[in-house]
Amino acid sequence: MRSDTFTLPTPEMFTAMTQAELGDDVYAEDPTVRRLEELAADRVGKTAACLMPSGTMANLTAMMAHVPRGGKALVGDESDIYLYEAGGASVCGGIVYEPVRTRPDGTLALPDLAAGWPPDLEDSQFALPGLICLENTHNRMGGRVLSPDYLRQVRRLADERGVPVHMDGARIFNAEVASGVPAAQIAAHADSLQFCLSKGLSAPIGSILAGDRELVARARRLRKMLGGGMRQAGVIAAAGIVALTSMIDRLAEDHALAADLARRLADIDGIEIDASSVTTNIVLFRVTAGDLDENAVVRAARARGLALGEFGHHRIRAVTHRGLTQTEVRDAAAILARIVQEAR
Amino acid sequence: MRSDTFTLPTPEMFTAMTQAELGDDVYAEDPTVRRLEELAADRVGKTAACLMPSGTMANLTAMMAHVPRGGKALVGDESDIYLYEAGGASVCGGIVYEPVRTRPDGTLALPDLAAGWPPDLEDSQFALPGLICLENTHNRMGGRVLSPDYLRQVRRLADERGVPVHMDGARIFNAEVASGVPAAQIAAHADSLQFCLSKGLSAPIGSILAGDRELVARARRLRKMLGGGMRQAGVIAAAGIVALTSMIDRLAEDHALAADLARRLADIDGIEIDASSVTTNIVLFRVTAGDLDENAVVRAARARGLALGEFGHHRIRAVTHRGLTQTEVRDAAAILARIVQEAR
Amino acid sequence: MRSDTFTLPTPEMFTAMTQAELGDDVYAEDPTVRRLEELAADRVGKTAACLMPSGTMANLTAMMAHVPRGGKALVGDESDIYLYEAGGASVCGGIVYEPVRTRPDGTLALPDLAAGWPPDLEDSQFALPGLICLENTHNRMGGRVLSPDYLRQVRRLADERGVPVHMDGARIFNAEVASGVPAAQIAAHADSLQFCLSKGLSAPIGSILAGDRELVARARRLRKMLGGGMRQAGVIAAAGIVALTSMIDRLAEDHALAADLARRLADIDGIEIDASSVTTNIVLFRVTAGDLDENAVVRAARARGLALGEFGHHRIRAVTHRGLTQTEVRDAAAILARIVQEAR
Amino acid sequence: MRSDTFTLPTPEMFTAMTQAELGDDVYAEDPTVRRLEELAADRVGKTAACLMPSGTMANLTAMMAHVPRGGKALVGDESDIYLYEAGGASVCGGIVYEPVRTRPDGTLALPDLAAGWPPDLEDSQFALPGLICLENTHNRMGGRVLSPDYLRQVRRLADERGVPVHMDGARIFNAEVASGVPAAQIAAHADSLQFCLSKGLSAPIGSILAGDRELVARARRLRKMLGGGMRQAGVIAAAGIVALTSMIDRLAEDHALAADLARRLADIDGIEIDASSVTTNIVLFRVTAGDLDENAVVRAARARGLALGEFGHHRIRAVTHRGLTQTEVRDAAAILARIVQEAR
Repeated sequence: MRSDTFTLPTPEMFTAMTQAELGDDVYAEDPTVRRLEELAADRVGKTAACLMPSGTMANLTAMMAHVPRGGKALVGDESDIYLYEAGGASVCGGIVYEPVRTRPDGTLALPDLAAGWPPDLEDSQFALPGLICLENTHNRMGGRVLSPDYLRQVRRLADERGVPVHMDGARIFNAEVASGVPAAQIAAHADSLQFCLSKGLSAPIGSILAGDRELVARARRLRKMLGGGMRQAGVIAAAGIVALTSMIDRLAEDHALAADLARRLADIDGIEIDASSVTTNIVLFRVTAGDLDENAVVRAARARGLALGEFGHHRIRAVTHRGLTQTEVRDAAAILARIVQEAR
Repeated sequence: MRSDTFTLPTPEMFTAMTQAELGDDVYAEDPTVRRLEELAADRVGKTAACLMPSGTMANLTAMMAHVPRGGKALVGDESDIYLYEAGGASVCGGIVYEPVRTRPDGTLALPDLAAGWPPDLEDSQFALPGLICLENTHNRMGGRVLSPDYLRQVRRLADERGVPVHMDGARIFNAEVASGVPAAQIAAHADSLQFCLSKGLSAPIGSILAGDRELVARARRLRKMLGGGMRQAGVIAAAGIVALTSMIDRLAEDHALAADLARRLADIDGIEIDASSVTTNIVLFRVTAGDLDENAVVRAARARGLALGEFGHHRIRAVTHRGLTQTEVRDAAAILARIVQEAR
Repeated sequence: MRSDTFTLPTPEMFTAMTQAELGDDVYAEDPTVRRLEELAADRVGKTAACLMPSGTMANLTAMMAHVPRGGKALVGDESDIYLYEAGGASVCGGIVYEPVRTRPDGTLALPDLAAGWPPDLEDSQFALPGLICLENTHNRMGGRVLSPDYLRQVRRLADERGVPVHMDGARIFNAEVASGVPAAQIAAHADSLQFCLSKGLSAPIGSILAGDRELVARARRLRKMLGGGMRQAGVIAAAGIVALTSMIDRLAEDHALAADLARRLADIDGIEIDASSVTTNIVLFRVTAGDLDENAVVRAARARGLALGEFGHHRIRAVTHRGLTQTEVRDAAAILARIVQEAR
Repeated sequence: MRSDTFTLPTPEMFTAMTQAELGDDVYAEDPTVRRLEELAADRVGKTAACLMPSGTMANLTAMMAHVPRGGKALVGDESDIYLYEAGGASVCGGIVYEPVRTRPDGTLALPDLAAGWPPDLEDSQFALPGLICLENTHNRMGGRVLSPDYLRQVRRLADERGVPVHMDGARIFNAEVASGVPAAQIAAHADSLQFCLSKGLSAPIGSILAGDRELVARARRLRKMLGGGMRQAGVIAAAGIVALTSMIDRLAEDHALAADLARRLADIDGIEIDASSVTTNIVLFRVTAGDLDENAVVRAARARGLALGEFGHHRIRAVTHRGLTQTEVRDAAAILARIVQEAR
């Protein structure tokens, strides 16, 4: 349960990979990649999409396509883009990250975003914002879904200030399934959207960057420059098509397992968790019993066959995904209960 | 009183400029520049120094000389380097700024600095810290002086982690004069130090970057690349020599005026100020009377001939400097008293 | 025959992909990727290797790992790195490309390389070389193989000057097969080597960067930053293992077909070609008959079912690869003969 | 005679510096700087101008203001921008330098410039040109003046392709004086122009970037970021005003001295020089007598009190400038004659 990034491909995906019609995608001649890109754009309500080898590259190309050299990207201080992507936008794009405090529900307060603009836009001392980045669902805040109302407010601010919005929607379909709001409707508030075909959707490799034609064309150029242009990419696109057309609905199962795990953990004395906030597939909790720190708990769990991850702020993360059974969830809770008990 | 950057050169400086022995400093053949650089290095206890056209370039070259592409610079979230230097380190150096919360006394808490390192240094998701930047005196925190004890602690952390420390000491001699600790002793805790010959020291142009020979040699190369190599730079170095040799002691006068102003403002009902924290030449305060916001106060003061600056967080900044008299300080306080009174 | 990048995977590759043991390679837990990387390092005589999504990324990470910000990469003016990789080293690495004249045999003359160093290394006006890049076999020079003797000379120059050598060996095994010199022996003259699992080796996706442990570790970090870290990358690594273990010897067939094509073209009056220089799988020629320009020839060939590529300097390129038959080669020559005849 | 960059300021300049009305130019409040900038813009027929600490920064900010990240700057392979400015555009701007062969008269052939565009602009493998840079007068080609006709042709090409033209006119007034074509007329063919107040114009520090308002505003922002914003910059602007208003006509004297020197050198058996091409203040020649290399000649001359510079391609450079007398020129020729004689 360390991460849904460990999810393995399905048999249908292997079949699709084997039967895919292939070409050289660096020349835009792989028909399977083209089909995936059209499908993906359509699914999230954008006019264009581009297959990327990873979510990191989808985010990086989006940032570089949106923000000129020297501009600021307003990002959550607990966002994956800021924390886990090695500072690529500064290195490759000369972009300044401006981390904005992330609230427990994964949102960035509008006044905090607005504070990114200096009082005098003409004053050459200040870098100027060129992009607002949101994350939905929000990983480090426990898989929280951003509400349509919040997205509307950010959109309005962005329009007033004249900057685009990029959504890191690595798990956007978890948001769709949990909230009932279609991904296309969620994405309508953003100029560009990144989502992963791996993770819960179970494809082995690949993420999609979607947006309008011009933005995606720019990102596609940047993809080549960064080295993300792949030859017979249809082999992974084929799996991506399966992911996109047949794996979304089953995310509900992951959510049910996560909710179940959260409820079980809430019942354990010595574990701190807000079970009501677990609405997708990520479960964050703290062990408060004894003086076990989070690393000790992770080690103890691993010794008993349960893989978890340390997740900052003394938290532990468990992620549900395809392949996990209700029994395993029950066992996981039991293992943690025992660890806590022994720690007292 | 908007800023000490408005201080004009002294007659002695003009005389020195006119009589300076000159050469082409791009070929390192300007004897006056060389003399200034030796003098400056010596004065702050470093083995080498380099004249820069501005403090911004001194800071930028220092960051680029210390931090490799993709490294993080841990900077205060209220530091001039982070806020007022247009993001140059990301653009020119591919360096990621990591803003760390600045405490009211201008320090960055050691645990907050330590949090800049990821749990696993090998994990390629994370950018790694390559530099700690301190600011002394601290502009946005009201000219606060960092204590030798604090500097020792940061030095120890930096040594443990294997990163250098850069000090933005634009007003380092204000720190020396206020604390009685020689600049060289303060700078001993840092690998590199930037200070301005302008501001309180009254030279028209120029800042110094000091450090060891290798670091300064690297910064000198970078200076040329950025376009900071100047031809007959002796004309400004000559003023810098006067600044360095005859203008430091008089900073005490600026401090006395600032303390006087702070006490007067503290006496005004409707002005919020911590007079005891004003130990150098910067006075920060808030107007709490009526519903005047800081911009309105600045405008009202300006209409009465008093130049102040809005300074974030609803604060107003007044800076004392050479040329300002006790009478003017008294008048300034009186003007503010009247503005506050009328605002009620 | 436009390019060997259009080569499709073999049935054995699909089988391997389907049966591969997978994990999350971003956490370095994909056993198939690890096996490929060990195999690849071993095959080219280096201590470490890293799977990349493309040759472009392998070259880019190598350049960034070798050259500090502001250093120069000495590259051939006809090299793929300089011409076809969108300037990534300048954008992402702040590296200056210094194009050096490429000779007809694909080599860069030693004095031309040496001219990359300024007379005075201390003079801050000059960027300094940080890397020499070679290409072997050399694409734009018609698949030419660099001789061991030449490589030794470049190695000696590099050692004298204290810079590393990177080899863009996208088609290194074509060099091995054509010259009989093992790839490991060729690579011994370089600090890092890139080669493609696609192209003649027929894997759908992936290139390898090989070098010593420290260099490869640095490149691996950069790969993540650029977005080249892929999840269940074992699916493509599995095909790469097949490519590396069973597809090298058959490159001889591609070479035989290319030589055959070259001889046939040499017999056509109105085609200019140096058949003796065709030693691998790339055939360059010019049509001198009539006033057909190269684009017209390419269009005419395509209209008759023969895919070729315009290749600069009025040249046309044909590339042989797996799947191509002797009959098709004969037909290709016949089509060109007819085009030339009609052009008179 | 090593360089005109060694020219010292005039007494009028020192007087102007001492009497200048000053302010803080970082706040755009230095009246002397503003006056210089208006004067300079007007003098070269542009709508705006910005004072820079050096020609390097003027060129760098121009390139960054014109060219987006990843674009190519087409520059002469013998241009100062490419050779002597430490690769700043790649480091700070992510710009790719594409060196184009420089012809003996300082021009870049139009077909060579046109070759900077790939056949297919949509193909993501290629970086695209974003700027053409010219140098006028051309330093490394012996101070050659670009003809109005050539400039018109480049302008037309640039317009057809949709890229701007930047002129490195460090010595633009030498071109004006030598050709009789006003600088404003020369500059009309370029979108931006850089010229130095130092060198022949004798100001101690400073260069001007001129162009339209928008371009100059962007460059001004970049100047701050690079650290070129200077406080009481009026002290150097005052000298610049003197340079611009009273030092241009006397460049004719430098040209006369250079022509005289060239003629004298042409008379020496064992010196190779094209005296007819010396039309401004730069004299290039080779010593062909004996087996003295250029460095030996420079050393021998220096031992006899004559400062010259080695200048690549076995050439030696002498530059005439204010302060130099006819007698010194005669002596210089005599010293070289003796060196050559002894070398036989």
